[in-house]
Amino acid sequence: MSVSSRFVRACNKQSTDTVPVWFMRQAGRYMPEYRSVRARHSILEICRTPSLAAEVTITAAEELGVDAAIIFADLLLPAEPLGLKLTFTAGEGPSIEPALRERRQIEQLPDSLRGELGYIAESVRLVDRHFGGKLPVIGFSGAPFTLASYLVEGGSSRNYVHTKKLMYGDPQAWTLLMDKLCRALMEYLTQQVEAGAAAIQLFDSWVGALSEADYRRFVLPFNRRLVEGVQALGVPAIYFSTGTSGYVETVAETGAQVISIDWRVDLAEAWRRMGHRPALQGNLDPVALFAPQNELRAMVQGLLEKAGGRPGYIFNLGHGILPETPVANVKAVTEWVHEYAHAGSI
Amino acid sequence: MSVSSRFVRACNKQSTDTVPVWFMRQAGRYMPEYRSVRARHSILEICRTPSLAAEVTITAAEELGVDAAIIFADLLLPAEPLGLKLTFTAGEGPSIEPALRERRQIEQLPDSLRGELGYIAESVRLVDRHFGGKLPVIGFSGAPFTLASYLVEGGSSRNYVHTKKLMYGDPQAWTLLMDKLCRALMEYLTQQVEAGAAAIQLFDSWVGALSEADYRRFVLPFNRRLVEGVQALGVPAIYFSTGTSGYVETVAETGAQVISIDWRVDLAEAWRRMGHRPALQGNLDPVALFAPQNELRAMVQGLLEKAGGRPGYIFNLGHGILPETPVANVKAVTEWVHEYAHAGSI
Repeated sequence: MSVSSRFVRACNKQSTDTVPVWFMRQAGRYMPEYRSVRARHSILEICRTPSLAAEVTITAAEELGVDAAIIFADLLLPAEPLGLKLTFTAGEGPSIEPALRERRQIEQLPDSLRGELGYIAESVRLVDRHFGGKLPVIGFSGAPFTLASYLVEGGSSRNYVHTKKLMYGDPQAWTLLMDKLCRALMEYLTQQVEAGAAAIQLFDSWVGALSEADYRRFVLPFNRRLVEGVQALGVPAIYFSTGTSGYVETVAETGAQVISIDWRVDLAEAWRRMGHRPALQGNLDPVALFAPQNELRAMVQGLLEKAGGRPGYIFNLGHGILPETPVANVKAVTEWVHEYAHAGSI
Repeated sequence: MSVSSRFVRACNKQSTDTVPVWFMRQAGRYMPEYRSVRARHSILEICRTPSLAAEVTITAAEELGVDAAIIFADLLLPAEPLGLKLTFTAGEGPSIEPALRERRQIEQLPDSLRGELGYIAESVRLVDRHFGGKLPVIGFSGAPFTLASYLVEGGSSRNYVHTKKLMYGDPQAWTLLMDKLCRALMEYLTQQVEAGAAAIQLFDSWVGALSEADYRRFVLPFNRRLVEGVQALGVPAIYFSTGTSGYVETVAETGAQVISIDWRVDLAEAWRRMGHRPALQGNLDPVALFAPQNELRAMVQGLLEKAGGRPGYIFNLGHGILPETPVANVKAVTEWVHEYAHAGSI
């Protein structure tokens, strides 16, 4: 079996020669090669320059020996073609102006990106050409709730008060916003698939701020629509969220081929609660990568045992790699995961 | 049935005339009376002055008409008698110096508070005397993990990297730290119960940073010990955590009479997963209090229906009341909850 098919086969719950593995934010600040590019360019410059975005994407995937290369991009890129101002301040995180708090602002929002994020598709094209089909490229975007929360709050948030006030206080405006974001994201993801992305991951990083009832009412229908749109393009959809361990069954109703879970739920238990219908991705605590190797190895072995050799398991973290993570540990985990299938232990 | 017994009876899963209700952080910044005291005193001054702490505790409970008064205090007060420096900076949150990163520091930590937090017991005494047994007083402390995480990180944290590095890298030092904190907290809680606290809540606000496996290995035994200690004093223990929706069954193994859950899991589902053994407290999203009253009322009604009239349900939020919360909505919720038992609807 070629490496190229291992990851995509697992997405589709087909058997594989060994467990595929990649890491969210595998091209990031923990890696010296990335830091050296970042020393010369801002995050937005890297995103907007396909040769740079492709370089950091390729370097990370080759350095680690993982089974997929996720394109380097930022969740907030769609803010600009939507007519909003996006800035990153060191230490403060992203800022979006103006924050969308009024129905009038939402009504005026375009519902098309008019192809303006073509530079990301170009990055996908460069990476895919580099690997010549030997390693699948993962395209991605934020899921509608997570993107909406940034736009409504004007940046990161702790309690999502403005987002929920809009949801509860003007459900029609909320629906209009989510509907426009779905259309815009679908254009963006279509560009990426046409450029060669072999799978699409939707990052719903902050949706765990919601109760199950609110998730079902205000978010799930839009996630379903976006997942169906991705699937209609002929590639698998991976739906990632955090903080949703209490309602993984509902999250699985998005219909995504792969559900990516955080580390706050037992892997075997989560898969059982989903009736083993979707493929499962996850769920090592990113901080486990700071542990001594004997402890780390035991944790990796534990997850592989919980996955139990079932087709459709993709090894990953429960969230992105943190800065300061020892690169040697990330490489060691990749090797252990690949070895496991052959020996049943690492 | 007197109001005095409604809350404690529910803690013990006995039947009550109506559903008892109180709110975490009910004496807080959202309330004008509290802000006026805060304008003249720092948080630490209020905590350390029993007449002030009693005043804000009593004012909030009487203003809202709730079924219990939780004493005004801060989770981090035990840091000082442990020999550490505690400061609060506006906008930055708490800071603890020095952060505990080395085994040597943990070995030198005292394992007794030597009665130094007696001012909190005095606050409990003043509040209990004020209500003359007509309203139960809830004492509290941080649970050992949450307190440990503050001491190891030196304040608030996003990823708890230092805490987990200690757990994984030097499990013996971790055990020693948790052991010392259990002893110190037990002294502190004993003082509060002797002063009249009718129940004790343990706040494990940040334990949801852990996987189920890590929770079971590094935290659960100490929570069990502290819960047993509280129960031996003859009052019910309430164990509160957030981010643990994926393993509420394991959380219930603390043995606390009451498990307080956040809003990221369906109330009926969580109680079912715990086999309905403990009493249940929660779990309205604190941001729901910002919703229009018709939406808010529907959410409250929904929770009461999920509790299904089962003895042992205590209405509360899933976490503390947020600043800016409209006081009128908090009062309205209290009234709706009390009305429900009689009519079956609100």
